[in-house]
Amino acid sequence: MPAPTHRLSTRVRYPETDRMGVAHHSHFPVWFELGRTEWMREIGCPYGEMEDRDGVFFPVVDLGVRYLRPARYDQLLEIETRLASSEGVRVRFEYVIRDEGGSTLATGHTVHASVGRNGRPKRLPVDIRERLVAGMGMERER
Amino acid sequence: MPAPTHRLSTRVRYPETDRMGVAHHSHFPVWFELGRTEWMREIGCPYGEMEDRDGVFFPVVDLGVRYLRPARYDQLLEIETRLASSEGVRVRFEYVIRDEGGSTLATGHTVHASVGRNGRPKRLPVDIRERLVAGMGMERER
Amino acid sequence: MPAPTHRLSTRVRYPETDRMGVAHHSHFPVWFELGRTEWMREIGCPYGEMEDRDGVFFPVVDLGVRYLRPARYDQLLEIETRLASSEGVRVRFEYVIRDEGGSTLATGHTVHASVGRNGRPKRLPVDIRERLVAGMGMERER
Amino acid sequence: MPAPTHRLSTRVRYPETDRMGVAHHSHFPVWFELGRTEWMREIGCPYGEMEDRDGVFFPVVDLGVRYLRPARYDQLLEIETRLASSEGVRVRFEYVIRDEGGSTLATGHTVHASVGRNGRPKRLPVDIRERLVAGMGMERER
Repeated sequence: MPAPTHRLSTRVRYPETDRMGVAHHSHFPVWFELGRTEWMREIGCPYGEMEDRDGVFFPVVDLGVRYLRPARYDQLLEIETRLASSEGVRVRFEYVIRDEGGSTLATGHTVHASVGRNGRPKRLPVDIRERLVAGMGMERER
Repeated sequence: MPAPTHRLSTRVRYPETDRMGVAHHSHFPVWFELGRTEWMREIGCPYGEMEDRDGVFFPVVDLGVRYLRPARYDQLLEIETRLASSEGVRVRFEYVIRDEGGSTLATGHTVHASVGRNGRPKRLPVDIRERLVAGMGMERER
Repeated sequence: MPAPTHRLSTRVRYPETDRMGVAHHSHFPVWFELGRTEWMREIGCPYGEMEDRDGVFFPVVDLGVRYLRPARYDQLLEIETRLASSEGVRVRFEYVIRDEGGSTLATGHTVHASVGRNGRPKRLPVDIRERLVAGMGMERER
Repeated sequence: MPAPTHRLSTRVRYPETDRMGVAHHSHFPVWFELGRTEWMREIGCPYGEMEDRDGVFFPVVDLGVRYLRPARYDQLLEIETRLASSEGVRVRFEYVIRDEGGSTLATGHTVHASVGRNGRPKRLPVDIRERLVAGMGMERER
């Protein structure tokens, strides 16, 4: 099985910009989520399936973003995602957003609780946990 | 019972602006929805209750907007909403968005299908239909 | 010069869904804009450059959308864009959004005014007009 | 001069919810901004004027959010905003978002750099600094 790429490219959309002429800060968490979504798909756990089939949801319980440089309209962003930890019912992802030249525009993290349809904490199914850990390991090796 | 006000004020939010310096056109349908939501509340049919209690949903099947003047950051908008028609499983709302001086910034409409939880067309419950018709009548009298 | 592809794929993002479980109707104009942006890039007129270098802006003056089927989370959408007309300071684009199986989810149009930095109508520079017309012609031949 | 209220009410909009049935986490920074905007207006420094007249911008350089309970559609939120510090070219705001019953849904902070039109750090004009400090003091006294 090939190592997950962990890298996703996306362009800054026009409505993501604001009157300051650059992307509004509230869109960076959306880009983090794009990176996380593709990371989950890569390890064989598409997030939508996890919700629909396994009844496991990953609401965000903690978010942090450091903004270093503005992201401009139509700029091609590279989103790097890695799973930093998975302990009990908590998983933590870390992100770096770079421009085409490799300059870091922002870094950040999200912490998620694993919950069931009723909103209560729910242990991750074994096969999902194993895939997450494998994904984390592959990341380390790179 | 007092006549519904049909008028709602809201300010243009910073992230609703784009690099052109004015509100992005995709936010006008969101403002229409704010007006529609308060209109429904006024006639005694809060939209959320209609979904949760009656299992009736109003997805948009047709949308039209004419943009006459830009909406600027922090500008206080007045959203005027009226129910234009309610026939069978279709309801049509019409909207005017004005600035504080009364100038029209945009006009538009939405057509909604009444559907049930399964996504299929569903006749409106009698009490909701009666309230809608009453709301439409009051509008006419003003 | 190769014919513009006019076709763009994008996935429905999680925050684009709403509590009805499907994409909110206000995101379809954003997807139209993605299609239009790539169409402009294809014909050699990247929209951002047109704004920054030529001082030509294309604000939306009219929008219409017909919603036929819901768009679901993570679904891969195909956005088909064509330039329908370009007369004087008005250009009209038309769009079809399909799912992976080719079913039409929505159709729509946007009409844009060509304006300058001062917000007043501005004739399109000759080279942009020529590229637009060429793009429209290629579309017809397909 | 009356003390700034620091409290703003806003309802959760339909498109702010996602398929999990609650507000998407990316909207909390937008609500923080609403609180900050009204706080600035209260102390006599409307943010838009500060940008347009003084050429002073407050881009976000650091954001943190802790999510404790979900925010539901149409729920009336109370946003509490306070200026935590203002040193050199950095200002830090802190926020609490509560539901109607007073339960805390989320807490967070934003740190802003004061920059000029060129994007470079810019000292706050004296009158703005004085108003900020006064606003901070009033907050302490409550």
